[in-house]
Amino acid sequence: MSDTSATPVASYAAKSAASPLAPHKIQRRAVGPKDVQIAIEFCGVCHTDLHQARNDWGRANYPIVPGHEIVGKVTALGAEVTHLQVGQRVAVGCFVDSCGTCPSCQSHLEQYCLSGLKATYNSATQDPGGFTYGGYSKSIVVGEHFVLQVPDGLDPAGAAPLLCAGITTYSPLKHWGVTAGKTVGVIGLGGLGHMGVKFAHALGAKTVMITTSPSKAEDALKLGADDVLLSTDPTAMQAMANQFDFLLNTIPVPHDFNPYMSLLKVDGTMCIVGAIGPTATLNSGPLIYARRSVAGSLVGGIKETQEMLDFCAEHQITSDIEMIKINEINEAYERMLKSDVKYRFVIDMASLS
Amino acid sequence: MSDTSATPVASYAAKSAASPLAPHKIQRRAVGPKDVQIAIEFCGVCHTDLHQARNDWGRANYPIVPGHEIVGKVTALGAEVTHLQVGQRVAVGCFVDSCGTCPSCQSHLEQYCLSGLKATYNSATQDPGGFTYGGYSKSIVVGEHFVLQVPDGLDPAGAAPLLCAGITTYSPLKHWGVTAGKTVGVIGLGGLGHMGVKFAHALGAKTVMITTSPSKAEDALKLGADDVLLSTDPTAMQAMANQFDFLLNTIPVPHDFNPYMSLLKVDGTMCIVGAIGPTATLNSGPLIYARRSVAGSLVGGIKETQEMLDFCAEHQITSDIEMIKINEINEAYERMLKSDVKYRFVIDMASLS
Repeated sequence: MSDTSATPVASYAAKSAASPLAPHKIQRRAVGPKDVQIAIEFCGVCHTDLHQARNDWGRANYPIVPGHEIVGKVTALGAEVTHLQVGQRVAVGCFVDSCGTCPSCQSHLEQYCLSGLKATYNSATQDPGGFTYGGYSKSIVVGEHFVLQVPDGLDPAGAAPLLCAGITTYSPLKHWGVTAGKTVGVIGLGGLGHMGVKFAHALGAKTVMITTSPSKAEDALKLGADDVLLSTDPTAMQAMANQFDFLLNTIPVPHDFNPYMSLLKVDGTMCIVGAIGPTATLNSGPLIYARRSVAGSLVGGIKETQEMLDFCAEHQITSDIEMIKINEINEAYERMLKSDVKYRFVIDMASLS
Repeated sequence: MSDTSATPVASYAAKSAASPLAPHKIQRRAVGPKDVQIAIEFCGVCHTDLHQARNDWGRANYPIVPGHEIVGKVTALGAEVTHLQVGQRVAVGCFVDSCGTCPSCQSHLEQYCLSGLKATYNSATQDPGGFTYGGYSKSIVVGEHFVLQVPDGLDPAGAAPLLCAGITTYSPLKHWGVTAGKTVGVIGLGGLGHMGVKFAHALGAKTVMITTSPSKAEDALKLGADDVLLSTDPTAMQAMANQFDFLLNTIPVPHDFNPYMSLLKVDGTMCIVGAIGPTATLNSGPLIYARRSVAGSLVGGIKETQEMLDFCAEHQITSDIEMIKINEINEAYERMLKSDVKYRFVIDMASLS
């Protein structure tokens, strides 16, 4: 579980009437024998942060300290932690605990823990009434299993979004076997999509950005796409029917995904990682007539997240970011709602005093 | 391509105004060097037959001769056909030609031919204006590649539905790795579902019939199910969450498939083989939170269909059938609409004079 010592800031912008508006002192938990205390340098800003801070999903437990794209340096270690050192650059992603014993946890898939994972913020702690607090903070204490090592040579600010946007796109590309010789479509160019393009390209696949916006073509090519497919152009879509081995759908809102299905080859899969919840009416025809699949995927396990960070160091991949100060977070949220960011805001936590 | 020499019967029940009601003489094509001429003994009655005969899908080309679950005996062979003998019992399924050169055809997946397969009936032939005619007939001529061998010891009438209902359920069970040690749910107990239960059981999986009808429990257990899960019982459904490796969804009409998704384990797949077309709004949540998939599957390739027939002979599996005469077909269609058949009508083609 994680706690922070800082007074939360962003959650006070919450619109819910249930939000306590008076300052609220949050106690950081003591560093246990298997814990790591981290001084946070940078924290990426995910759409989830915005939804939770504003209680869009109706399950916010105020005060909330958002943030699950955390990079910082070790400031203290529990007595039993032997693989990390004080001063080492480390990272924390979307979850900070899981049962450790279920088939998912035993298979390095903690994100699918059958007992329910503990999210980095807004999850109940073992202390009755307690909740985890995330990375919009000066420090955090996390169990060693959930602390990643940031390889030397990775820009720490650009690395922060790898902990959510990065692993969310890397994991499905790896799981569905994206390699050289495959053709991959990345649908939607935002925080997730721009990472998807970088990873698919680095994995050697022919990478096509699929977008509704002609204006995004130039950026997509710079990010590593080999081609751009305008999904609003029926002729172009028809010409690319049956051409894709895998589609990574990063569109963050409900949408009709059916037109994309015909782009897939026989046995192809479209994986949804952006829009969670009801989307559109599923037409089973394109599935049945080519044994295609629609799937979903949630971030990645700890082992795979470390593999992803190492892959990023090897290929010099980080997120394209815009750095902000903590007191600019509400403005950043508003700009995110307009997709006005290339491609991820990252908070310089030195700005939190 | 296939043609028949018989006067079609069932298609005259068509409700479309476009249906020519006057008798129509259909010419059987000559037996070419790679062709097989078959005297049809039995033909299963598939829901597709009903839809096409009545032009429910708006693409019927009258006169139609339905029927793609065909069992009969070889009566003539082309000069180049060396692996079959006159008098041998053979079968024809849902398609009678494909391009032979596309990646699907080259991978024994003719059902997904990228040039479009030729269905056993109502598909355009190479002769301009011609259409294939199916198994509600005394004979058929089919290219040797699309003729299956019916192993000795399989009841020929009970084997007929294997050519559609059988392979439609066998193929996805095999493709998604159903074996001993797996838990499989078969959703819906009809022509497809009853074959799915028999196959899943014979493959060694723990087999659960998932149905809305308590009255079907007894039958399901007789067919080989280890257990029955009532999908209308929320407590029972909750108790079986995360328990299934694979779900075979045979429900033949649009329905809300989302409640079934939570039954799947992490990485589990539900394959739709019954309802083709728009179904229900896809909730991506159950996909994302356990990397589950929704897929589809269409019959099976020729090689796999032969494998399925051999498997059936080895395990003594045939369809449970109700035999009818050809002049009972319209009554049979009406009963099918009420699910009043256990579990497949088969026409005794000796009744066609």
